[in-house]
Amino acid sequence: MPDKDALALGLDFGTESVRALFVSLDGTERGSAYSKYTHGQITSTLPSTGAPLPPDYALQHPGDWLIAATRAVRSAWRRVGKTGTRVIGIGVDFTSCTMLPALADGTPLCLLPEFEANPLAWPKLWKHHGAKTQTERIERVANERRELFLDQYGGAIGLEWFFPKLLETLEEAPEVYRAAEVWVEAGDWVVWQLVGCGAREMARSTCQAGYKGMWTSSDGFPSKPFLRAVHPALVDVVRTKMLGRMKTPGQLAGRLCKDMAKRFPFKEGIPVSTAIIDAHAGVPGVGAADPGTLVMVCGTSSCHMLNATEYRPVPGVAGIVKDGILPGMFGYETGQAAVGDAFDWLRKLARQRSFGQLTNLAATVPPGADGVLCVDWFNGCRTPLMDGRLAGAFTGLTLRHSSQHLYRAMLEATAYGLRWIVDMLRENGVPVKKFIATGGLPHRNPLFVQITADVLGENILVHPSQQGPALGAAILGAVAAGKRAGGFSSVRSAVRTIGGVRKDVDGRTGKLVSPDRRNKKFYEPLYRRYRETASFLKGSPPAS
Amino acid sequence: MPDKDALALGLDFGTESVRALFVSLDGTERGSAYSKYTHGQITSTLPSTGAPLPPDYALQHPGDWLIAATRAVRSAWRRVGKTGTRVIGIGVDFTSCTMLPALADGTPLCLLPEFEANPLAWPKLWKHHGAKTQTERIERVANERRELFLDQYGGAIGLEWFFPKLLETLEEAPEVYRAAEVWVEAGDWVVWQLVGCGAREMARSTCQAGYKGMWTSSDGFPSKPFLRAVHPALVDVVRTKMLGRMKTPGQLAGRLCKDMAKRFPFKEGIPVSTAIIDAHAGVPGVGAADPGTLVMVCGTSSCHMLNATEYRPVPGVAGIVKDGILPGMFGYETGQAAVGDAFDWLRKLARQRSFGQLTNLAATVPPGADGVLCVDWFNGCRTPLMDGRLAGAFTGLTLRHSSQHLYRAMLEATAYGLRWIVDMLRENGVPVKKFIATGGLPHRNPLFVQITADVLGENILVHPSQQGPALGAAILGAVAAGKRAGGFSSVRSAVRTIGGVRKDVDGRTGKLVSPDRRNKKFYEPLYRRYRETASFLKGSPPAS
Repeated sequence: MPDKDALALGLDFGTESVRALFVSLDGTERGSAYSKYTHGQITSTLPSTGAPLPPDYALQHPGDWLIAATRAVRSAWRRVGKTGTRVIGIGVDFTSCTMLPALADGTPLCLLPEFEANPLAWPKLWKHHGAKTQTERIERVANERRELFLDQYGGAIGLEWFFPKLLETLEEAPEVYRAAEVWVEAGDWVVWQLVGCGAREMARSTCQAGYKGMWTSSDGFPSKPFLRAVHPALVDVVRTKMLGRMKTPGQLAGRLCKDMAKRFPFKEGIPVSTAIIDAHAGVPGVGAADPGTLVMVCGTSSCHMLNATEYRPVPGVAGIVKDGILPGMFGYETGQAAVGDAFDWLRKLARQRSFGQLTNLAATVPPGADGVLCVDWFNGCRTPLMDGRLAGAFTGLTLRHSSQHLYRAMLEATAYGLRWIVDMLRENGVPVKKFIATGGLPHRNPLFVQITADVLGENILVHPSQQGPALGAAILGAVAAGKRAGGFSSVRSAVRTIGGVRKDVDGRTGKLVSPDRRNKKFYEPLYRRYRETASFLKGSPPAS
Repeated sequence: MPDKDALALGLDFGTESVRALFVSLDGTERGSAYSKYTHGQITSTLPSTGAPLPPDYALQHPGDWLIAATRAVRSAWRRVGKTGTRVIGIGVDFTSCTMLPALADGTPLCLLPEFEANPLAWPKLWKHHGAKTQTERIERVANERRELFLDQYGGAIGLEWFFPKLLETLEEAPEVYRAAEVWVEAGDWVVWQLVGCGAREMARSTCQAGYKGMWTSSDGFPSKPFLRAVHPALVDVVRTKMLGRMKTPGQLAGRLCKDMAKRFPFKEGIPVSTAIIDAHAGVPGVGAADPGTLVMVCGTSSCHMLNATEYRPVPGVAGIVKDGILPGMFGYETGQAAVGDAFDWLRKLARQRSFGQLTNLAATVPPGADGVLCVDWFNGCRTPLMDGRLAGAFTGLTLRHSSQHLYRAMLEATAYGLRWIVDMLRENGVPVKKFIATGGLPHRNPLFVQITADVLGENILVHPSQQGPALGAAILGAVAAGKRAGGFSSVRSAVRTIGGVRKDVDGRTGKLVSPDRRNKKFYEPLYRRYRETASFLKGSPPAS
């Protein structure tokens, strides 16, 4: 029996806010809270100067992360309430690839007076889309050189990844590139700050590097000849500006340092796990320890992850990384670039304060949205086309339609997009047997889950935890603590103990959503039209 | 010199309101006013019962027309102010094909207690789209029988025309069809009420019949064998239920009857012209007496009319009618089914009270709407595809776009749609040399006119009168009066005297909008994308 007083802390850094979750080692959630980032997503003007940002820019303020985390931890800890409890391990998940340039002491470059006015010195949020030409070049060079890392990405390089963002700064703000002593994923940066080590001892996550940094377990980061071919100044970037040690999520990154312990209501020395991508943390978080379960982490964007025992290259799959999610399996990462974000875009377009009325009205619109069809590429298409330049669409619009038709069409488009991903995986021999939805969206938006179940024709289990990634991060914290400190010896044993769905515990019962077979049949031709429309739009992407 | 005290009255019945305009015979506007229809467009519930209407329905309340006209005439007359003036003639234009079933005494069927609950007994507004299957059948039968009238419509039958609407009622409410003693265009019905004659003496407009009723000057209405092939019950409809005498606009329909004179501030006996379609009235209204001038009447929808000396069949042109607009020329009618209506749809979607902010913001969006492309088929496509089942679209949508991008894209799409029409005419040998815009929209929305000029690469003269159709109707009233009563002997002489653009009269100067040549070049590839997208959408129309 696990020690009731031993808690693990998961810190889940999302796009708008950070969540702190304290969990007992039997999986009981003991207290959680979230705190919004003061500056949120920075997309229109730079906070330092008020200067307008180019379109496609999405930045964050690095000061927000630890301040919001401190608030969330203190608030969640008050909810735990009980004395006698102790924190045995801390895990961190973060959006990715959110990355920044820093000095060797960890100071983000954008906080220096000489760089605060330069947008490219600021952390680029995962959804920053400024690196279009750089992405194209990296992909072209990689294909010309037949780089082996291409295999794990279905042959395509993502607009949102680490090296395109880095190259964008090198080309457009070389002074920032030169001044950066360390280029780092934001998740690794947070862990680095928590443990307070030197840059050379920093734990770099194999998860983030494997999915977003063209890193493979066999060959490491891209080779010097490749990097030189991309840009001569990049040749030594890995050795000189990407200091640190590669570690897997759950592996000990270090221990909570004195400075950070002062912020939190507990003592220094607590083991801290190597970071994991927020979406990927959802897989252990929902207890999906076995192959063939698609874990759909639905929020601002959606990330759909699957473990499989075999390696099957699938065109357009964002990443197939060995041990990338759970040890001993191939982690398949697929994704949809705008989900909650797109819904919110429509909500704002229709000038609604909340989703309440839109959702109620959309539920009265029959399947098929009265002829309105949407393509959900409002932030590009991640899987399967891996093209950030693609854009969304509505067709079938007439004067009789209003925002609820567009909203329903958007929900349906998101489901069609997922169905396309599932079809792709299965057609390429990757088994997909079960579906678990997590993240905030499935809890807030049952209509979205029902439409998804109908379009897929599959049962979907909505995981009871509204904070799958935070729970996953906490699990990794318990693993980093190790068995001797009251934690776990392996990720899989921790997942099985902490992460499973308890159907019998009041208030935490997973909800199984079953498809309506008539709707499934009705959606078939509409899904084909979605694919046709997608195909047309793909053929003529808007000028970038 | 025309008599300064002689005035003509134009009554312009639009979709939402009626305008009354008093004009001197030298073209000076002496007083005008409009009045909204109490029930406006009836699209969601039936006023009599509150019962919901099927989608695609658009009805009107026949009681609104004369009540609103009375209000508008009285109010405009107060503005004329001067004593000593006298009205020598009245002209009427009306949206078309807006039509209704009535008794032989003129009573609209929907005002009878036994029919008020039946939507199909109500006047169908031009944009009523309930007759889809009927349109298809009529078109199929006409093509099978190679009916000659097809030539004047580019081979296609419009969803909004007279016979499809009539057949819809015959099939879906046979009791209404049977009870109807007269089926009549709303414009002809208003003139009938004004003159107070019997049904057999009613003036049926060759303009409305020629453009919307498959009537040709050589063969009249469709033949009995054709009508029988469409539906056996239709065989005698022309003889039994379409009583009246065909007359051209400007021809005397009768004289203002005693009952109607009581409503208005003038005496009975004033000559009343045969009705004309509202858009077509804009051609004399803006003084376009010569061939090769495209008169663009832009409002709820847009109607683009052109006179030419030659008959050239053009695919998809809604109508080519000899003497249809002005005597001695072939009147080409083309149109866009949703213009102001579509803009208003977007305004409502974005929950804006007025267009002010949308327009201001859209003006800051550069040409091309930052990648957003619209196809303007929100009420089907009139010219050139003549398919009311087609629907609108937006592509190129991303999270950074907001309502002003969609609005600008919509303005651009409307301009692309017009360019397509102009290209079609020219490619088929119909000269298009000059462009005159009229209707309310060009005055209210200069951005729309500029974008149109840029996309066409042509100068556009915005006619000083904001009420081109009302002025055209007044001109026809003066023609109906005849020379001896102080009016004119021909439409062309009246047009030249009353309708010309006076550039030197303060406050009535036409505004010439010139294209920006750089924008014209910029729009070229976007126009091609519009055509490609239109082509894709046409290939896969939404299920009706």
